[in-house]
Amino acid sequence: MQHEMIAPGSVWLVGAGPGDPDLLTRKAERLIAAADIVFHDALVGPGVLDLIPPGIERVNVGKRSGRHSKDQGTIDAMIVAAALSGRRVVRLKGGDPSVFGRSTEEIDACAAQGIQVQVCPGITAASAAAASATLSLTMRGVAQSLTLVTAHARADAPLDLDWSALARPDATVAIYMGRAAAGKVAGRLMAAGLGPDTPVLVAVNVSRSNERLIRGRLDALAFLVRTIGERDPALLLIGRAMAPRLETLPGRFVAGQQRQEDTMPI
Amino acid sequence: MQHEMIAPGSVWLVGAGPGDPDLLTRKAERLIAAADIVFHDALVGPGVLDLIPPGIERVNVGKRSGRHSKDQGTIDAMIVAAALSGRRVVRLKGGDPSVFGRSTEEIDACAAQGIQVQVCPGITAASAAAASATLSLTMRGVAQSLTLVTAHARADAPLDLDWSALARPDATVAIYMGRAAAGKVAGRLMAAGLGPDTPVLVAVNVSRSNERLIRGRLDALAFLVRTIGERDPALLLIGRAMAPRLETLPGRFVAGQQRQEDTMPI
Repeated sequence: MQHEMIAPGSVWLVGAGPGDPDLLTRKAERLIAAADIVFHDALVGPGVLDLIPPGIERVNVGKRSGRHSKDQGTIDAMIVAAALSGRRVVRLKGGDPSVFGRSTEEIDACAAQGIQVQVCPGITAASAAAASATLSLTMRGVAQSLTLVTAHARADAPLDLDWSALARPDATVAIYMGRAAAGKVAGRLMAAGLGPDTPVLVAVNVSRSNERLIRGRLDALAFLVRTIGERDPALLLIGRAMAPRLETLPGRFVAGQQRQEDTMPI
Repeated sequence: MQHEMIAPGSVWLVGAGPGDPDLLTRKAERLIAAADIVFHDALVGPGVLDLIPPGIERVNVGKRSGRHSKDQGTIDAMIVAAALSGRRVVRLKGGDPSVFGRSTEEIDACAAQGIQVQVCPGITAASAAAASATLSLTMRGVAQSLTLVTAHARADAPLDLDWSALARPDATVAIYMGRAAAGKVAGRLMAAGLGPDTPVLVAVNVSRSNERLIRGRLDALAFLVRTIGERDPALLLIGRAMAPRLETLPGRFVAGQQRQEDTMPI
């Protein structure tokens, strides 16, 4: 039995990775099996949820049928209540809990109640996208840094990113939740000095059976994202390290110079 | 049998994660078991190597007893030769192959010979360090981006990083292989405007049994790394998101305000 991995009344925040259940860590798999209750995001893939053994309660605290997510305070309160009732709690979060996962709120809410909380890391989308595309996010002499940002701003908030710091020709930028803001992002980066021919890779549903990798150039980014469904998680990767290399794989790319692999309508 | 995961004569670059074998992905574990031969770095932890089933050849292509690593061209040639001889090749790399893993060279060397090469992502050290410290690398209103850089320059090369882009008060910077350059890094970041009281977290041997997490402030960084052995992998995390929060765990921190957990000499 795995049960002793989680003390009764304690919480683990667990990274579910990008979607493919095989990209879960061995530790995450064991933690899921050790839980009494699993709270999960809507973005956690169905394959991952299938790893939750029958009999363990599962609660979707994410977006449902177009409605907005539960607000963070509600999620915090649900986790805290479950732990205070003595249950073994797993909070399963898409990707890595420490990257745009709003884990701090949940950690603080637990800690404020004296609840022990621990974190199991996950594969973040940028790593999975690079793996799928058989390329590196950093590259000697080409991309000496990798910056992760999110373009998911509240509707009324401006996209307040440090464009001059991001517009480095020798860097890779990974923009999480970047679909809606793609045009604006491209415009700002070009205005800040990044070349319009900078290679971009749009990674949709990374690591899932309906994964799509779309290649192009920065000045076409707004066009490239037009075929992406509103609910499909999309990551934008921008920088010279994203340039196509010698072809290494059966075609997985759509748009432009690569073949289409997936069978989803485009 | 897992054998069919790897076609004869093809190569998988596989992320071994930060050290704890439980932080390997399920996919990586299966790929290792499907290989005929595994080429691995010296930094891949012994626990991970124990997952390689007996009978599968393993070749250490990393640093040995103080000597320098094999040069990249030699490693490329060994991988290519193994694949061309028809073997199922796994190239096991510490962390995530796409982040400071020099994967591009190996991918290109294989592709140039018509060898199919694929990548399995791994947990990168920054994710694992944040998990161990129970904190987030990004944080609403505090750290809106995460930048990964390496401070591992050739002995004769200057540390040529974009200090003004890195010295953002609302960002987290993760400096891989940062031990030797820690003092210089801190000085440059402060000269570029980052406050001397910016919180830092030095993560040594992340996720291993001899893990150490050392907290402090930026102006003490050179001092904080003095106790780290030259061969221990060290990651520097810098930024306001690294500030200590309510205590959530039995003490894992050394130096300053936290208790010592590990039993290694300091």
